[in-house]
Amino acid sequence: MAQAIEWVGFDGDDTLWKSEDYYRAAELEFESIVGQYIDLTDARSLDHLLEVERRNLRVFGYGAKGMTLSMIESAVQLTGERISARDIHRVIEIGRATLQHPVELIDGIRAAVESIASGHEIVLITKGDLFHQESKIERSGLADLFRRIEVVSEKDPATYARVLRELDVPAGRFAMIGNSLRSDIEPVIELGGWGIHMPYHITWAHEAEHTLAEGNGRMLQVHSAPELPGALARLQSLSSA
Amino acid sequence: MAQAIEWVGFDGDDTLWKSEDYYRAAELEFESIVGQYIDLTDARSLDHLLEVERRNLRVFGYGAKGMTLSMIESAVQLTGERISARDIHRVIEIGRATLQHPVELIDGIRAAVESIASGHEIVLITKGDLFHQESKIERSGLADLFRRIEVVSEKDPATYARVLRELDVPAGRFAMIGNSLRSDIEPVIELGGWGIHMPYHITWAHEAEHTLAEGNGRMLQVHSAPELPGALARLQSLSSA
Repeated sequence: MAQAIEWVGFDGDDTLWKSEDYYRAAELEFESIVGQYIDLTDARSLDHLLEVERRNLRVFGYGAKGMTLSMIESAVQLTGERISARDIHRVIEIGRATLQHPVELIDGIRAAVESIASGHEIVLITKGDLFHQESKIERSGLADLFRRIEVVSEKDPATYARVLRELDVPAGRFAMIGNSLRSDIEPVIELGGWGIHMPYHITWAHEAEHTLAEGNGRMLQVHSAPELPGALARLQSLSSA
Repeated sequence: MAQAIEWVGFDGDDTLWKSEDYYRAAELEFESIVGQYIDLTDARSLDHLLEVERRNLRVFGYGAKGMTLSMIESAVQLTGERISARDIHRVIEIGRATLQHPVELIDGIRAAVESIASGHEIVLITKGDLFHQESKIERSGLADLFRRIEVVSEKDPATYARVLRELDVPAGRFAMIGNSLRSDIEPVIELGGWGIHMPYHITWAHEAEHTLAEGNGRMLQVHSAPELPGALARLQSLSSA
């Protein structure tokens, strides 16, 4: 029987390379700056930051630059406009450091990507700031393995539908691999595709929200990159059944 | 004889819709904030801002979010760290307003794009922040006219070469229309393509730098959108000669 799954998509952040660690480190640094002005146990600064970030997503989109602008806005509000210009500049430096963080591959991911690329067409579908994502893709050393690279502003069914149309592949022949149920798995399953969920040890609160039922028959979960080729083979036999 | 130019690219900002006006207004607003702290005739704040922006381009890339972060950094430096948190917040509001400015089409551009689309495949190639560009493309009402839309982080020969490869069109069969000699015309001519330069009434200093000789035989200049179809027809006869 013909192979049902022809194309495989990979997420970037926290699937190919570590990312959320740097954002968490940025948040801790942000808290240490704001903590000079207010009692953090009362203010719950990260809750406030998340709220500001979410409100700003519609205007700023995802990524480190939007996060930095939200941090500055949040710092101004949390401190009752008392934060100094020098400390604001330290927040900008947090953003700069986040944009320049080293690209550290997830353990075993290169071999897994190479293995899957030997039997499928593969595409990198990553969300966020175009400039930052391109910089990370280049520094990852993985770019040449991918037939196509798509940096998108949102990972919803409409976006995946557009990408699949451009690849000329029906959803039933496409599987997506990623760490976020909300962004990588749920929208692809909704279109009739397949998913392999590889959770990362930390998840941004915004990405933790999803409505996917456990035990969905079009999705498998793995806990490390070396398990990916085997999981794809199992999905393959499910999809050919 | 076969038509030599098959694909036509259009730039977005200041070619399809007005953009630089909003950035200039943002700069004036920035100056009015910084001007509360320093004597602007001495400080030449816009020179300093351009310098900070250029240094930050390598980390922040193009676009309104990078501009806003550079404005904040520049304001902190120009005021000797005296700027208040409230005024920093006003700078963030400048960025938010710039990201949300209305999309106002260049006079006559819709008819020109429709006319050219009737005889060519057309692609929109626009530089800057992915999220902001997508928002402008959607609000422009022009998206459906384009066969492909490419938001890129830099408009250099390597980027155009990649896009042309994806379109499967040789450079000699491609003409680019845009307001920036540096970003829209020069790199395409370098690859062996064709260009129509339609200057906008204002140009960001960074985009004003180019090395293209006047009277280059692969480029024509027009002064308004209604002249575009005629100019393309002239290029077409040059390219078929």
